[in-house]
Amino acid sequence: EKAISLTKSIREEAITSLFSETLPRSLAIADLGCSCGPNTLSVVSEIVIVVEKLCQQLNCSSPEYKIFLNDLSGNDFNSVFKSLDSFKVKLLDEIIKSEMGPCYFFGVPGSFYGRIFPNRSLDFVHSSYSLHWLSKVPEGLDNKGNIYISNTSPSNVSKAYYKQFQRDLSIFLKCRAEELVEGGRMVLTILGRRNDDPCDTEYCCDDWELLATALNDLVLQVEK
Amino acid sequence: EKAISLTKSIREEAITSLFSETLPRSLAIADLGCSCGPNTLSVVSEIVIVVEKLCQQLNCSSPEYKIFLNDLSGNDFNSVFKSLDSFKVKLLDEIIKSEMGPCYFFGVPGSFYGRIFPNRSLDFVHSSYSLHWLSKVPEGLDNKGNIYISNTSPSNVSKAYYKQFQRDLSIFLKCRAEELVEGGRMVLTILGRRNDDPCDTEYCCDDWELLATALNDLVLQVEK
Repeated sequence: EKAISLTKSIREEAITSLFSETLPRSLAIADLGCSCGPNTLSVVSEIVIVVEKLCQQLNCSSPEYKIFLNDLSGNDFNSVFKSLDSFKVKLLDEIIKSEMGPCYFFGVPGSFYGRIFPNRSLDFVHSSYSLHWLSKVPEGLDNKGNIYISNTSPSNVSKAYYKQFQRDLSIFLKCRAEELVEGGRMVLTILGRRNDDPCDTEYCCDDWELLATALNDLVLQVEK
Repeated sequence: EKAISLTKSIREEAITSLFSETLPRSLAIADLGCSCGPNTLSVVSEIVIVVEKLCQQLNCSSPEYKIFLNDLSGNDFNSVFKSLDSFKVKLLDEIIKSEMGPCYFFGVPGSFYGRIFPNRSLDFVHSSYSLHWLSKVPEGLDNKGNIYISNTSPSNVSKAYYKQFQRDLSIFLKCRAEELVEGGRMVLTILGRRNDDPCDTEYCCDDWELLATALNDLVLQVEK
């Protein structure tokens, strides 16, 4: 939630320049890694409100919105879909005009490390806190019982994870390049560190160590 | 399943004429009221196979497929989405060529008695055994404790249901008219009777009477 509010102005700028340049009659927006909590629709709501305000300022008619909500097929799309009706009511309340452009919602199951949308079908792509999930654990690696990069991991482990990240991000960008229209915009928020140490607990490794210890304990109990 | 196999040739004819006329590079197919059982994807699979065979015969390249699966937001889309990976593998097995056009899947939650797709966005619309579900029970009706048209229902009840059906179907057709592209096709399969008696048990009322009796028994127990 903090990340979403910190990056708000970046999204606003992106969608404002996109919309003002072309005044499109239809706007296809994708949220990649949408998950299923209260944050799922907050970015969508924010974008629609920005565009509706722009329409009032520029005195042009509202576009139709095509909202694509993507996550892995194991995501709880059922609860996302069930929340859509109340979301639409709430959204209309926040928009000053009595009406807005029609909103069409689509659930898109699948990994964004592959093509999930038709060619040139998206105007705006958003992804927050999803791209740090790799497509898979790097192959052929002996990580000494760790589930992530740990202080006790051999030195080649962090290199292997880094290479996997490079491969994944490169595939992500290639796929989106096919799916975005010319002049489309993309805003990606991703976890990072301020230093080179992949185990620096200030940034993100704390939870993994705890989880790994718990999982290893469970494994040991089964082995007994 | 019987209805789907009986209507196969009608769909084949529709999709063949649609595809042959325009040789589209992209084909948007919607299944309205897709539900979530084993039948959900069988029509999609059948249509893709017909088109891929046509491409081989006509020696043209495969289109990209946009498959829209619609049902009410209470439908179990999670299980539909989870079945997509194995569906794609199975589909490729049935297609004689080693490859086919890319398939993009979208879940579309919402009632088809309203707009659920953007303007002119669909090439082919299919709906099987869904349009007999009305959008609501007709208003202001005293149906003497029945949940459907029964032998003991007052005579105005079947008229009210009939009018509701007319209103609903008219809305359905108006919405689809906006959503289909020019020259698009629609194949609808709907339950019917061979006579005028809405209570004729040969066609569809049997289950409702049983269910109504069971529900009324439960209500009586609560009232005690």
